[in-house]
Amino acid sequence: MEKLLVKTGCPYEVCVGHGLLRQSGELIRQVCPKARIAAVVTDTTVQGLYAPALMASLENAGLSPVLFAFTPGEEHKTLRTLGEIYEFLAQNGVTRTDCLVALGGGIPGDVGGFAAASYLRGIDVVQIPTTFLAQIDSSVGGKTAINIPQGKNLVGAFWQPRRVLCDIDTLSTLPEDIFADGAAEALKYGMIASRELYKKITEDIKGNLETIIRSCIAIKRDIVQRDERDTGERMLLNFGHTLGHAVEKHSRHQISHGRAVAIGMNLMTALTTRMGLTQPGVSEELKQACQGLGLPTDYPCTLQELLQYASSDKKRAGDSIRIVAAEKIGTASVWTLPFEKLCELMLTFS
Amino acid sequence: MEKLLVKTGCPYEVCVGHGLLRQSGELIRQVCPKARIAAVVTDTTVQGLYAPALMASLENAGLSPVLFAFTPGEEHKTLRTLGEIYEFLAQNGVTRTDCLVALGGGIPGDVGGFAAASYLRGIDVVQIPTTFLAQIDSSVGGKTAINIPQGKNLVGAFWQPRRVLCDIDTLSTLPEDIFADGAAEALKYGMIASRELYKKITEDIKGNLETIIRSCIAIKRDIVQRDERDTGERMLLNFGHTLGHAVEKHSRHQISHGRAVAIGMNLMTALTTRMGLTQPGVSEELKQACQGLGLPTDYPCTLQELLQYASSDKKRAGDSIRIVAAEKIGTASVWTLPFEKLCELMLTFS
Repeated sequence: MEKLLVKTGCPYEVCVGHGLLRQSGELIRQVCPKARIAAVVTDTTVQGLYAPALMASLENAGLSPVLFAFTPGEEHKTLRTLGEIYEFLAQNGVTRTDCLVALGGGIPGDVGGFAAASYLRGIDVVQIPTTFLAQIDSSVGGKTAINIPQGKNLVGAFWQPRRVLCDIDTLSTLPEDIFADGAAEALKYGMIASRELYKKITEDIKGNLETIIRSCIAIKRDIVQRDERDTGERMLLNFGHTLGHAVEKHSRHQISHGRAVAIGMNLMTALTTRMGLTQPGVSEELKQACQGLGLPTDYPCTLQELLQYASSDKKRAGDSIRIVAAEKIGTASVWTLPFEKLCELMLTFS
Repeated sequence: MEKLLVKTGCPYEVCVGHGLLRQSGELIRQVCPKARIAAVVTDTTVQGLYAPALMASLENAGLSPVLFAFTPGEEHKTLRTLGEIYEFLAQNGVTRTDCLVALGGGIPGDVGGFAAASYLRGIDVVQIPTTFLAQIDSSVGGKTAINIPQGKNLVGAFWQPRRVLCDIDTLSTLPEDIFADGAAEALKYGMIASRELYKKITEDIKGNLETIIRSCIAIKRDIVQRDERDTGERMLLNFGHTLGHAVEKHSRHQISHGRAVAIGMNLMTALTTRMGLTQPGVSEELKQACQGLGLPTDYPCTLQELLQYASSDKKRAGDSIRIVAAEKIGTASVWTLPFEKLCELMLTFS
């Protein structure tokens, strides 16, 4: 097991390794020494796969585990599920010194994390991401969220976990299409920060998996440490996300987050190439890499339609919108432009 | 107008004076210079009284005001109202640089404050409390909350306002019973921190109103500054609240917050007197003061019943509960005791 220290307001470790689920009770006890109850929040798919091992480990560590599982899917990352979690926590007598354990992909991580951020105005949370995507993305950095009808992740809080446990073994049960979602986010890290990582991903993603996960987490950690509240550099992590979120929304979440990000990275890079912000050839290289990883690179709708969905994006500030452009593979920058200007550009190029 | 500076993580001012509502647009603009939209959250009663003046002032200051008003009452301080506010904000295109203005008593302040804390993971909020209670209590300190079926204020966030505007003129429209609620909280400040303030309240509350409000805010400010995240001294502010919340809940919110706190202060002081923590005579003096202010001092239910409701209180940590005991008028301390011990004591004395 390797531990990466994240130095945010309240520092915490991301533990990466094999067999962590079996040691989870002890690893949680160490960071939540006063906890009596460990309230596990997960979805019913992950419950079947990993809840028994987690619950047993929590019990062995002297904690009283209780479990809340909701129906899987982005369409359940709602205020309604959140309300059910609150009631579950209150009914089970969870107090301020107890802890919540968010187990699963990004959805249980996001909604469980926000429940922990807001129940009793905040209790400890330990994240146990079990998908490639969640391990390298949503479990680090303290962003928690739910969706509302007007858009994805429009409600939430910054709430750093007490510890993150990334058990590589849990990735072995991942279906290929869910694995590919993680590959898209991994590729994003390569695009914005490391040509070397990008190379490892395109050459042999499965053979390099543990190294790739650690590299992605280290990149995100470094950026989040420098910009915890998402006011500047952290925006880099949103490469491909402005149009990606629009694709997710337009498809009514039929297109998964990773795939939508792959599409968003490709559309944005094609656009920024034509704007002169991206070096020639990068767009084609990115497209090939995505195809090699089984990821889509285009989406059958006009840019005009996508723009409508992008207009309610959190990345808007007043009349401006910030976009992320990769200059070349391994280097990216944030650009602020009037929203109207982005519309104009997109329409010209479509 | 007097300004009291509150030095929490992000410092802000509480402005106290006459005619502030008419100047509100300018006072908000100063602290939210980038805001384009000012989203006012209030209840329909307060809307009728003060929204026109506020909206006009916002518009004069160059902001685009939009308004969301919900049905008044504690029973609407729910996840449902919160969801409606989120949708309202998204539909009106409120972005991260815009601000929310919570106008009204503690309920719009709490639910509006929590909406601001969580919409887009946090936007600026300005509090404009229009009741005596809200001006001296809920508008200072950054606590925001909603109720869930299992209890009051069990969900929320710490979210400091950018500014608080206490317009003394708005208190002139307060019905006597709502004024009395504020008197109960004012008396609490006297009990825990200042015999002089206590004296002003019991002798001529209306004649001393502005001084009393400033004194209460200054006491709360000093305590909150020393303990923003409510881990120690801030607990003093909960004098009368553990049993007070239980009374509110047992009465299904038919007994208002201030009245419930008056009952809670009296029941707790009677108990702590018998435990030897409170000097003889204090309990009787407090009872007389409450009666003089038109506040109840007792509640027709057994302590046993109340205890059940107190057992889910946020002030519990594991098996312990913290209570606040007034040693004498103007001085109080926090005591931690096993919850079982409190039950035993209450049953012995009832």
